[in-house]
Amino acid sequence: MNTLPERAPLSDKFAIWENDVIEARQRIASFIHRTPVLTCSTLNENIDASVFFKCENFQKTGSFKFRGACNAVASLSESERARGVVTHSSGNYAQALARAASLHGVPAYIVIPEDASEVKKQATIGYGATITLCPPTHAGRHNAAARIQEETGATFLDSHDDARVFAGQGTACLELMDEISKLDLILAPIGGGGLLAGTLLAAKHALPNIAVIGCEPAGADDAARGIARGERIVNFFPQTIADGLRTPLGENTFSIIQALADDIVLVSESDIIHAMQFIWERMKIVIEPSSAVAVAPLLTGSVTAARKRIGVILSGGNVDLTQFFKLLTAAPM
Amino acid sequence: MNTLPERAPLSDKFAIWENDVIEARQRIASFIHRTPVLTCSTLNENIDASVFFKCENFQKTGSFKFRGACNAVASLSESERARGVVTHSSGNYAQALARAASLHGVPAYIVIPEDASEVKKQATIGYGATITLCPPTHAGRHNAAARIQEETGATFLDSHDDARVFAGQGTACLELMDEISKLDLILAPIGGGGLLAGTLLAAKHALPNIAVIGCEPAGADDAARGIARGERIVNFFPQTIADGLRTPLGENTFSIIQALADDIVLVSESDIIHAMQFIWERMKIVIEPSSAVAVAPLLTGSVTAARKRIGVILSGGNVDLTQFFKLLTAAPM
Repeated sequence: MNTLPERAPLSDKFAIWENDVIEARQRIASFIHRTPVLTCSTLNENIDASVFFKCENFQKTGSFKFRGACNAVASLSESERARGVVTHSSGNYAQALARAASLHGVPAYIVIPEDASEVKKQATIGYGATITLCPPTHAGRHNAAARIQEETGATFLDSHDDARVFAGQGTACLELMDEISKLDLILAPIGGGGLLAGTLLAAKHALPNIAVIGCEPAGADDAARGIARGERIVNFFPQTIADGLRTPLGENTFSIIQALADDIVLVSESDIIHAMQFIWERMKIVIEPSSAVAVAPLLTGSVTAARKRIGVILSGGNVDLTQFFKLLTAAPM
Repeated sequence: MNTLPERAPLSDKFAIWENDVIEARQRIASFIHRTPVLTCSTLNENIDASVFFKCENFQKTGSFKFRGACNAVASLSESERARGVVTHSSGNYAQALARAASLHGVPAYIVIPEDASEVKKQATIGYGATITLCPPTHAGRHNAAARIQEETGATFLDSHDDARVFAGQGTACLELMDEISKLDLILAPIGGGGLLAGTLLAAKHALPNIAVIGCEPAGADDAARGIARGERIVNFFPQTIADGLRTPLGENTFSIIQALADDIVLVSESDIIHAMQFIWERMKIVIEPSSAVAVAPLLTGSVTAARKRIGVILSGGNVDLTQFFKLLTAAPM
């Protein structure tokens, strides 16, 4: 990461998407939380750097997903709004789209795999969405969503590859760069690639020489392998605690990451858990494993940090702690 | 809590202590974090109130204890500083005094019961203090501290009953009132009483009609029983997960709480754990059980909250999560 490669000029499509991020910011400003940027003096001392954490774990519905969902819903025409939105999701995006739709008075139909946690189902219903359970397979999810789309005329909003969605995700990076000047490097996790794609569009537009590195679990390394091979990987079996990062890249997010990312680093499961514990104990904030994936490279040294100003997008904080607190009730600390 | 009783005029001693809080604020300003005030829209909707959390879990060393320790150390004369400070503590105050002393270039001697957690011992050593292990009894702690005091000439700084310490603790409330206007009610947990005493002095000085309620585990209810009886209770066997609240009130803190507190509410162990889980999951911040004691009455309804503006002092966030993360490593979520 000492010398950045020359970047090819952006295609017209990328230029449009960059503007989409700027526009998304205006569109969603009154609906989202402008999340805080926190620092950790112990970490800064340990690695001799200045690290700035953009805390999307404090975002509405507990993750950055709310930004993209909000931008997509707010971008719909009047007639589209009346018919509603549909998606499939087993995680944070289900809640994010349900709440974004509810805030805009738009019906939301969310397909959730039947093996998803009860907490997530209830939260999505709690935001006013109509949920439909489906078999926990790719086909099961797609078929259920397609049927609802046909029946209702609702607009399908993909969790990461829809330009309205990933443009919205980029607004977290815009806010971070507004608040913190002269960043050398930004780290973001990679799942479906919406967060990293949005971050790349936002960062490279504003600061062409900034480095942006995607962080991926070694147990779900489709982005790293796909970029190395020059071809998107869609069939793989993720094995990682980082439940938000088990999704393959989309076509759009793959092309953006392939063109603009400076590097992709892989993170082991034990390094994910160690980074998560470090942040909980030192910063006193709850982050989910997917967020810890973008912290771990700073703790392990797999990304060179010394004397840099580094932004880290902490993507979310949705961890089901029921089991942990049951343990506490049974046998207090 | 609908009508507040008339308050007797403050004694001269209370007036001095109130000024001590104001002075403490100046004295420690450049050493402490001005911690954020956070809100939780779900809670506000659920109880139809506006609740403002003063997040001392984000304070240096992870708790409000750093404020009082810092004020006490900064209040010492030159010759006292040279001889150092001594205390006994099994918890947050050990780390707080160690770090406050280190920041002021003052030697710190901390007596820690030998059964305290290894994490806490190491953290205290990490801040540069000299630690001495002692038998885990009242006598063991006092004797060890007295011996060190005799040998070194160090100043003994009690964790809660020293006026310099509880005046420092009151500065969290001053900051809260600065940032949030028109509070009707403030809730703070009761252990040794330093935080509640400081909060009472700060709040009642600025806003004589504000209500301040102390929150105490039912399993360590020495304050509630002592005030009911009109006499401080020193011998009792605390049984609570709230490890910061197992200490009896001091003489000074008892007299302040007796004179100024509007009420004391008791909280069950299961309500403590439920409140802790609520804050972790909804607000994505790590608080320790002692902090949850001041949140629980809002969730259970044992304090009337509707249409009030309520401040809650979240006292700290030091939870040893090693066991939890070991579980995660063994069997990912």
